[in-house]
Amino acid sequence: MNAPTAPAHLLPEVHQRATPDALLAALKARFGNNCSTALVVREQHGRDESSFSAPPPSAVVFAESTCDVADAVKLAGQFAVPVIPFGVGSSLEGHLLAVQGGISIDVSRMNQVLAVHADDLTVTVQPGVTRKQLNEAIKSTGLFFPIDPGADASVGGMAATRASGTNAVRYGTMRENVLALEVVTASGEVVRTGTRAKKSSAGYDLTRLMVGSEGTLGVITEVTLKIYPLPEAVSAAICFFPSIEAAVRTTIQVIQLGVPIARVELLDHNTVRMVNTYAKLNLRQEPLLLMEFHGSPASVKEQAETVQEIASEHGGKAFEWAETPEERTRLWAARHNAYFAAVQSKPGCRVISTDTCVPISRLADCLLDSVAEADASGIPYFLVGHVGDGNFHFGYLLDPNIPQERETAEALNHKLVARALELEGTCTGEHGVGLHKQDFLISETGQGAVEIMRTIKRALDPNNIMNPGKIFSL
Amino acid sequence: MNAPTAPAHLLPEVHQRATPDALLAALKARFGNNCSTALVVREQHGRDESSFSAPPPSAVVFAESTCDVADAVKLAGQFAVPVIPFGVGSSLEGHLLAVQGGISIDVSRMNQVLAVHADDLTVTVQPGVTRKQLNEAIKSTGLFFPIDPGADASVGGMAATRASGTNAVRYGTMRENVLALEVVTASGEVVRTGTRAKKSSAGYDLTRLMVGSEGTLGVITEVTLKIYPLPEAVSAAICFFPSIEAAVRTTIQVIQLGVPIARVELLDHNTVRMVNTYAKLNLRQEPLLLMEFHGSPASVKEQAETVQEIASEHGGKAFEWAETPEERTRLWAARHNAYFAAVQSKPGCRVISTDTCVPISRLADCLLDSVAEADASGIPYFLVGHVGDGNFHFGYLLDPNIPQERETAEALNHKLVARALELEGTCTGEHGVGLHKQDFLISETGQGAVEIMRTIKRALDPNNIMNPGKIFSL
Repeated sequence: MNAPTAPAHLLPEVHQRATPDALLAALKARFGNNCSTALVVREQHGRDESSFSAPPPSAVVFAESTCDVADAVKLAGQFAVPVIPFGVGSSLEGHLLAVQGGISIDVSRMNQVLAVHADDLTVTVQPGVTRKQLNEAIKSTGLFFPIDPGADASVGGMAATRASGTNAVRYGTMRENVLALEVVTASGEVVRTGTRAKKSSAGYDLTRLMVGSEGTLGVITEVTLKIYPLPEAVSAAICFFPSIEAAVRTTIQVIQLGVPIARVELLDHNTVRMVNTYAKLNLRQEPLLLMEFHGSPASVKEQAETVQEIASEHGGKAFEWAETPEERTRLWAARHNAYFAAVQSKPGCRVISTDTCVPISRLADCLLDSVAEADASGIPYFLVGHVGDGNFHFGYLLDPNIPQERETAEALNHKLVARALELEGTCTGEHGVGLHKQDFLISETGQGAVEIMRTIKRALDPNNIMNPGKIFSL
Repeated sequence: MNAPTAPAHLLPEVHQRATPDALLAALKARFGNNCSTALVVREQHGRDESSFSAPPPSAVVFAESTCDVADAVKLAGQFAVPVIPFGVGSSLEGHLLAVQGGISIDVSRMNQVLAVHADDLTVTVQPGVTRKQLNEAIKSTGLFFPIDPGADASVGGMAATRASGTNAVRYGTMRENVLALEVVTASGEVVRTGTRAKKSSAGYDLTRLMVGSEGTLGVITEVTLKIYPLPEAVSAAICFFPSIEAAVRTTIQVIQLGVPIARVELLDHNTVRMVNTYAKLNLRQEPLLLMEFHGSPASVKEQAETVQEIASEHGGKAFEWAETPEERTRLWAARHNAYFAAVQSKPGCRVISTDTCVPISRLADCLLDSVAEADASGIPYFLVGHVGDGNFHFGYLLDPNIPQERETAEALNHKLVARALELEGTCTGEHGVGLHKQDFLISETGQGAVEIMRTIKRALDPNNIMNPGKIFSL
């Protein structure tokens, strides 16, 4: 996603810790030109795709190796100065903001695919490798890495936020697909959290403790991932529905029947309208499902037939199929353009994105009430969803110069999250907690669980230097 | 598995902490007849399926509710006395042994299926529910819980050891299938670690920190699991091979091709011989693969044809198919009887079971060298494996009255683990670390990772009362 150009919401500068000149001098001495204090570089590393802003970090270290990361962390630790890992800057929840000051460690130059074990369906990469780069690098092996959060995020960032996206309904999230990590801890020590074995009962699951810890427990310096054989056959389909409810009920039934669908994405009629304008398409302005089926030719055919039958029962129509990569790309353009189309529909707007996820049987209840509220609010919005997982995103488009719009959007989000929690769901399916959902996290898991998280954080990072201020306050 | 009757290896009574009379009196006052100090009850709770023994716990509390567990932990905590959760006693690694004294908390009476959400493919159970009981309870919904570690283990115990078994190659392990837990922490607080949403990025993954923590961070009092639609079609097959290598190479190719096989189990010719004698079967005394295919009728047929073709290329022969439940049960009898058949083949023996797991491409290397070593040792053994995951078990059958046999078996296990680690595998695929693999854990992950585990343990259980002495020393 492109960085919005409109001003963001300024966060209070709570607990801004000063970066001593001695630390800056030590970083310069160690890293030379790979340490920058230029304002433009700092500003570029002090924002992300969230609607918040904070003063930029005091320096940016461009790490080229695990040793670089370890040395940067050790130096920062000597001065109790925060470190914030940075990949490509696509966080949606303020993970990259230096809310307590500190230095940014940019790992984008650590972008080597270190080992492809095609026979084992595993790959080991540096954290700055992006998902598209990874797929390009392994294409010739007949394998692919399915997780697709939309943005061409770095694998390190995806691990840190427990990302997922369109393919998760079949292939799982980063939780299921990271086999092992190398991590630099708060003391600057380099630790490995697992092996390449597909399963293990060897002690605490440090891999999954680190996955989704948003940089607060360590800087990820290496990731071993599961990869998958490219399906023998792939088929995509688009189908239009008389209502969001009909599309959602179709999805629910597909999942409950155990159809191993690879992708099932909802776009509401607002999003279709925006995409039509943006990409000069001519799609029916109705809620639609975009679907993809992976498997053997026979299995894909069988899945597609089952789904078409279910969709038809719910009034689904104008089925269109795509078998070739080019046709599929054309169909999926609507989904991939949704965010940009929405932003362009209201020039100068900022987006507040929701991220609830509920058990599939609750999806219609959760979605429909929230649509009614959003419609009533008058705020323009788009709605997309990885509905096969019960995960969906409203994007409220607000004018940053009109505080009332932000308040309205936040109120809508509050109601949505409260509803999702009531329905046994979560406040964040894939974006993470970051700065914005700390109260929601407490509502969701209770003070007791958050206190366990804090206890772990304090024990592993006693000086609170690892991306402080994210997930919870200390 | 039945409890062996032969004497077990006596562990040194390190750090046996006394249980003060005041604690016993308080437990009696709180729990009445649900607290027992009878020797026979204590002895029954002071052993498991491992080859180790230790003095029994000083009391057993039969918990009937989360509140019971919380009160027992709080009372024990007041006296800094250890608590050891107990399900059905099927641990293979000494998890249930009171190596530092303390009380056993038996959760087998907490055996209610609390909620079946068939529409969401989730179920919530108390920890004493066993996997067979669970499957019986949900049978009428057309759903099933696939994880099958062999023993009819409790779901709580399976979560605590991150168990898996025969179906994991398709459905994953407890790591992938536990959605959320309720846990009583060391302070006696009741905490929930997740929701019923299929995915979440809400803070640290406490669910997966608890899964596999072997009772050292809390007592599991409720488990929410994924369940799956019973496959429309199921087909089982048995196939014999000229060598273990041929069977393993077949498996490797099946996995690398991405065939979604549901089970693929190896038995070596020793095991076949033992099973033939035990169950009066007449199987060819050759290495064999037992396989199961799940899916639509067309998909099952396709999978089966692909696998049969691969097997034939490796000399697989005497294919036999089973479509009906009765035929499948008959085929799988060989696998399910393996342990009992082996124990009966050497009356009075104890079994030392190995549990390595390696990346699939390394499986042949790891297995074949270890078979050669075991053959050369003269110790009788059986060999079974969840080979689709790269996980296999040698069971060395030793006479507990001949110390040399234990030494030989331990030496074989050491060599095997060293080999597995060399091949980027793990010392335990599914049994856990317990008492027996603490040094291996350090070799596998390094001191740094184990020190992180210890730090977490100290922070969350400062008095070290939660199943102390397991996974690592403190």
